[in-house]
Amino acid sequence: MKIAVVIPAAGMGRRMGTSQPKQYLALAGRPLICHTLERFKTCESVVVVVEPERVELFRREILGTHDFPREWHVVAGGPERQDSVRNGLEYVPNTCDVILVHDGVRPLITFALIQTVTHKAFDAGAAIVAIPTRDTIKRGVEGFVSETIDRTHLWQAQTPQAFRADIIKKAFAAAYRDNFSGTDEASLVERIGVPIALVQGSDWNIKITTPEDLIIAESLVKQFPLLCKEGSGEVER
Amino acid sequence: MKIAVVIPAAGMGRRMGTSQPKQYLALAGRPLICHTLERFKTCESVVVVVEPERVELFRREILGTHDFPREWHVVAGGPERQDSVRNGLEYVPNTCDVILVHDGVRPLITFALIQTVTHKAFDAGAAIVAIPTRDTIKRGVEGFVSETIDRTHLWQAQTPQAFRADIIKKAFAAAYRDNFSGTDEASLVERIGVPIALVQGSDWNIKITTPEDLIIAESLVKQFPLLCKEGSGEVER
Repeated sequence: MKIAVVIPAAGMGRRMGTSQPKQYLALAGRPLICHTLERFKTCESVVVVVEPERVELFRREILGTHDFPREWHVVAGGPERQDSVRNGLEYVPNTCDVILVHDGVRPLITFALIQTVTHKAFDAGAAIVAIPTRDTIKRGVEGFVSETIDRTHLWQAQTPQAFRADIIKKAFAAAYRDNFSGTDEASLVERIGVPIALVQGSDWNIKITTPEDLIIAESLVKQFPLLCKEGSGEVER
Repeated sequence: MKIAVVIPAAGMGRRMGTSQPKQYLALAGRPLICHTLERFKTCESVVVVVEPERVELFRREILGTHDFPREWHVVAGGPERQDSVRNGLEYVPNTCDVILVHDGVRPLITFALIQTVTHKAFDAGAAIVAIPTRDTIKRGVEGFVSETIDRTHLWQAQTPQAFRADIIKKAFAAAYRDNFSGTDEASLVERIGVPIALVQGSDWNIKITTPEDLIIAESLVKQFPLLCKEGSGEVER
């Protein structure tokens, strides 16, 4: 099985309140994005999507300085995340069987979870890492609760989201044909009728978008050996 | 304005995988529940709800040893959280104007947020602390995604949830009359037609239910001065 990963890392990180986009902030001594990239070193093909003006800088300062393979693709993103992933997909070789999409700012993903979601996608067509929602979810309109969402079997989607190559390509083509935009890749695949398998993720697999998240990640990354024992990916419910 | 707080702390903490329930595990050198109790020292009335067999132990080992007012109520919980809160409500003096309900295992709540949600409830009748959902939410059935929930204006409910005293009492009476159970107190109040105001919470205000959460809380508690500057409670959307 040949595996490709597309890593959108073009977010501006406005919520972080720093001049540096969040993916370049230091985590345990090196840029956050390096931790993420490290997890995908065994992939056949790696495509990182960054802001158009950062493509050259990224090749030199991230891939070059931190000793990543020079043949990895660094490509220019689009206005929205979905556009960035679409651009990235164009650089995936046709020989790849499974394509993963993983947030650049989720550095605490484990090899075990990547493997589980990849195999599940190869078997089932599509699979995503997700965790059961622990909080009560409300819909709010103009500062007031309008609805409590029935919490039965709610999951919070994480990444990686993994798909057989033909399926994700078909889903993206359909979405752009129909002018559909989704908040994750799976939602594009759902609408072409492919069932998405759920793989039990980890509370550690956080998305770093605020200064608090970075503090949290700093403490978690020190526990990485413990983390790597977890997240076998079995769905319990 | 006189304020009471009911603090359900009767969870068995099965997810924590320890022999001690999670609320008694050490956080920065003292039991987690002590951090939570500390935040409500200015309340007129404090009612802590614990497992029936722990009532005496809690009075002695937590209130006694850690120097909390002896007049605080420690009462026996029921089979479910809602039953525990109902038991706690019976010990709130009739003189209180606003009743807060706050999870025993959310120690990182700030005074500022407690104040904001309390005042909002006094004005509007009911208010809850909540944060906008950052993840895509899916419904899952038997290991597969059945639906992507429209993410527009979704919030994750936290605590405190705050209510004018007459309103929460009426809501609980109605829920038990109709045999209704909800996953939070606000859902009981919503069904009697009272609008619930949203107060912007904080990512730091985590609920500690797993070993990872405890690691995260350990790192956040060290940053407490920074934390206390945040969470003014303004709703941005």
